[in-house]
Amino acid sequence: MKITVRDIANLVNGDIIGDADAIIMAPSKIEEGQPGTVSFFSNPKYESYLYTTKATAILIQKDFALKNQVNSSLILVENVQEAFGKLLQTFNYQPTPTHLISKLASVHDSATLGENTQVGDFVVIKNNTVIGSDCTIHDQVYIGEHVVIGDHTIIYPGVKIYRHTVIGSHCIVHSNTVIGSDGFGFSPNSEGSFTKIPQIGNVVIEDNVEIGANSVIDRATLGSTVIKKGVKLDNLIQIAHNVTIGNNTVIAAQTGVAGSTSIGENCLIGGQVGIAGHSKIVENTMIQAKSGISGDIKQPGRKLYGYPALDYQNYLKSYAYFKNLDKLVDKIRKLEKELDFIKTKNESNV
Amino acid sequence: MKITVRDIANLVNGDIIGDADAIIMAPSKIEEGQPGTVSFFSNPKYESYLYTTKATAILIQKDFALKNQVNSSLILVENVQEAFGKLLQTFNYQPTPTHLISKLASVHDSATLGENTQVGDFVVIKNNTVIGSDCTIHDQVYIGEHVVIGDHTIIYPGVKIYRHTVIGSHCIVHSNTVIGSDGFGFSPNSEGSFTKIPQIGNVVIEDNVEIGANSVIDRATLGSTVIKKGVKLDNLIQIAHNVTIGNNTVIAAQTGVAGSTSIGENCLIGGQVGIAGHSKIVENTMIQAKSGISGDIKQPGRKLYGYPALDYQNYLKSYAYFKNLDKLVDKIRKLEKELDFIKTKNESNV
Amino acid sequence: MKITVRDIANLVNGDIIGDADAIIMAPSKIEEGQPGTVSFFSNPKYESYLYTTKATAILIQKDFALKNQVNSSLILVENVQEAFGKLLQTFNYQPTPTHLISKLASVHDSATLGENTQVGDFVVIKNNTVIGSDCTIHDQVYIGEHVVIGDHTIIYPGVKIYRHTVIGSHCIVHSNTVIGSDGFGFSPNSEGSFTKIPQIGNVVIEDNVEIGANSVIDRATLGSTVIKKGVKLDNLIQIAHNVTIGNNTVIAAQTGVAGSTSIGENCLIGGQVGIAGHSKIVENTMIQAKSGISGDIKQPGRKLYGYPALDYQNYLKSYAYFKNLDKLVDKIRKLEKELDFIKTKNESNV
Repeated sequence: MKITVRDIANLVNGDIIGDADAIIMAPSKIEEGQPGTVSFFSNPKYESYLYTTKATAILIQKDFALKNQVNSSLILVENVQEAFGKLLQTFNYQPTPTHLISKLASVHDSATLGENTQVGDFVVIKNNTVIGSDCTIHDQVYIGEHVVIGDHTIIYPGVKIYRHTVIGSHCIVHSNTVIGSDGFGFSPNSEGSFTKIPQIGNVVIEDNVEIGANSVIDRATLGSTVIKKGVKLDNLIQIAHNVTIGNNTVIAAQTGVAGSTSIGENCLIGGQVGIAGHSKIVENTMIQAKSGISGDIKQPGRKLYGYPALDYQNYLKSYAYFKNLDKLVDKIRKLEKELDFIKTKNESNV
Repeated sequence: MKITVRDIANLVNGDIIGDADAIIMAPSKIEEGQPGTVSFFSNPKYESYLYTTKATAILIQKDFALKNQVNSSLILVENVQEAFGKLLQTFNYQPTPTHLISKLASVHDSATLGENTQVGDFVVIKNNTVIGSDCTIHDQVYIGEHVVIGDHTIIYPGVKIYRHTVIGSHCIVHSNTVIGSDGFGFSPNSEGSFTKIPQIGNVVIEDNVEIGANSVIDRATLGSTVIKKGVKLDNLIQIAHNVTIGNNTVIAAQTGVAGSTSIGENCLIGGQVGIAGHSKIVENTMIQAKSGISGDIKQPGRKLYGYPALDYQNYLKSYAYFKNLDKLVDKIRKLEKELDFIKTKNESNV
Repeated sequence: MKITVRDIANLVNGDIIGDADAIIMAPSKIEEGQPGTVSFFSNPKYESYLYTTKATAILIQKDFALKNQVNSSLILVENVQEAFGKLLQTFNYQPTPTHLISKLASVHDSATLGENTQVGDFVVIKNNTVIGSDCTIHDQVYIGEHVVIGDHTIIYPGVKIYRHTVIGSHCIVHSNTVIGSDGFGFSPNSEGSFTKIPQIGNVVIEDNVEIGANSVIDRATLGSTVIKKGVKLDNLIQIAHNVTIGNNTVIAAQTGVAGSTSIGENCLIGGQVGIAGHSKIVENTMIQAKSGISGDIKQPGRKLYGYPALDYQNYLKSYAYFKNLDKLVDKIRKLEKELDFIKTKNESNV
């Protein structure tokens, strides 16, 4: 692929300083920029590379004050990240669809597939399932009975979707993720073992949701486990039965949300976080990686950290003291000695 | 599906207060109860819904003292959870088996399948494997060489079972779980890298075990990794080589048990717990979510919490002080000042 | 399989004390040793079994000073672990390859497979992919477009490898692991939701790497996520986009490494560790299980522990005080009282 600096400026609605006709063949990281590539600069940590990179062109913030001479052409934009995202889309790999429904797939007669929906090899689609148009169901995917999927949704190889799951439009689910497996529900019985509580609910995933690889979203005991519009879930995440996650909430890898918890919209949740069952987390909550949340979070906009989690600054402060507990203990010992000395002296004074 | 309140009362061995002939079409959560549904009430947190729900009938504890008028018919039972579990079973989805052994499966000639055992599309069953009767081997499952599976066991789509694994009867394994992968064993060699230690043992899973989705149980180096009767494992769990888990122990999602550790029976282990290798955890141990266990637990019935774990109440107490370490430091500073003042005064008194 | 003690001594280059002609049919753990088996002794914790085991032969360190009579034949070696590894290899299960390329696989015409490479049932190999010689691609594996795999590499059932991934020679990837899924990259947009940043980089895995089951390695946004020579990754591990892991680093199960972090060579990282994004961890770093690393580690050879991590001994020391914070508080209270008493007395003395 070959485009000019001018083409890129047009694409991202930017202004050019330098050679508009220079040829660009690939994007690059600024620290690895080579002639013929276009880089971007947004993180101040990388400013030194701005003046040394061999990249032919650089996307840069409109009003950025240069401190030195830059050898590359500059493309000035309002929002570097957004512009670079657009640019990457241009260079993104576009597989050519080879066949619509693979002859090596097993699609039940009662399943309905929309226009231009592609189904890969060794896919299984069970009875009464309805898939919209322009979807890509990659190889080796399993879609159970009575599933409904919207339009323009991509399901990567090996994903397993249990019966009665509902998935919206413009969703992406990465490989080997499991959606709709039984919630973890058992009741202790008189023999000292556990009886399975049937999980007869389902999973509902709304539009524009992306889910990473090897994650699990369990079906509800009754009703639905709900992942709302625009939610982004990373890899290896556990979402238990009857959880609800609000619009545009983002959760990083290996986090687990226990049963019946609801999370509000626009939350940012780090990796390896654990959230206890039956909790209510309000909107705009930020949770630092590896934190443990053991109950409701009622006030929006809090930033939490620790196990169990405190307000971010409070955890940092307490942890700073924790690191120096030996010095604290020394001080107490010193106080005890001094006090003993004073007491002894006072007594001898009597 | 339509049944009467009387039918349900018969099913769960309950007594009716109200209309025994009312028609029930589905179960519901009490806070979402609609006419034509049956709910249950067991968690006191939800008592207000008892008096406002539109559910036609409610399963309730025999001796529960009502505080207000209830509009629904009541079905009085000894154990609400158990009764509701039975009820859910009645309403549970029952897929109709379409064909016994799919023509799209690859089953080795030397494999043996019991009566009524169903094998889905794109399943692989290798040589010398023996599967009992009334099992369901869902689509895209892999079962390696010399595996033995009992009766009435359900293996969900995408599960991979390595050679020589033994699985009992009435087990359930959810999608994309891996059983029998190599234990993580390497010995450092003279070149500064690691040589693989062959893992020639296997995995043995006894009867009535349920395992969630995307979990991993590694084969033993020598001998067996053993999951005993009635164990329930949630999603994304790691069980390393040569681990033993005792009867009826329950482990929540994303917990990891390192190599050669043994866990006793009737333990309750929360999510995201980590248990170090070569540990012995006795029976009836409770471990709070996210805790880290770094050695043996020898006294039964302990409840543990923290990283590394302490007794539950002790961790809570220490953590309460941790949260207020700044105040403790202030107190020490104040003591130091006062003591300085006294010392100065005493000296000036001399 | 039957070999003599002499055969084993030859294999591991060891000296025999006892019956060189005794027949060995299987390896065993020393605490479970039976006649006809060969055990090994290296962990001092198990010394009592040395004198009581029924194993016919025992691999033991050359210069080990016996405290009692041993009934088994002894095979004296330099390095017990390494010798036992070799021995296990001898007894390891060797599946007989049945057919080279399964007729039930879907291999694109433009894909190239080296000599003796075996492809299982329901495997998908996409266009322009090149696989070396003597590889085993097990059943139900997916290998996307433009993938390159070296020689003697084993890919277990259900692994999914996205387009443009590069994997070296002598690698092992266990079941249902996902390689090359999209990095977790989104930029907030003006509508309050997130726009996907295309992930156009790839994953590069060098020679002699082993990866456990159900792990995930994301592709880079730009450039490559790199796993260098001899790295060993356990199960359920998360490696985010643009991470680099140095030669011979070993990482235990359920650990997560966030985006753009680089880890040096010869590091030992425990299970359930979390490492924040954009961190640089130098070579020879040891990280205790469940620790959280929130920034750069610049000095080689440190051993880290805690959340966030401190030097190992420091964390242990602080945690010891943490456990006894109640006693510290008592001491402070006592000091306060005594000081009050002294102050009151001093004042009354005035």
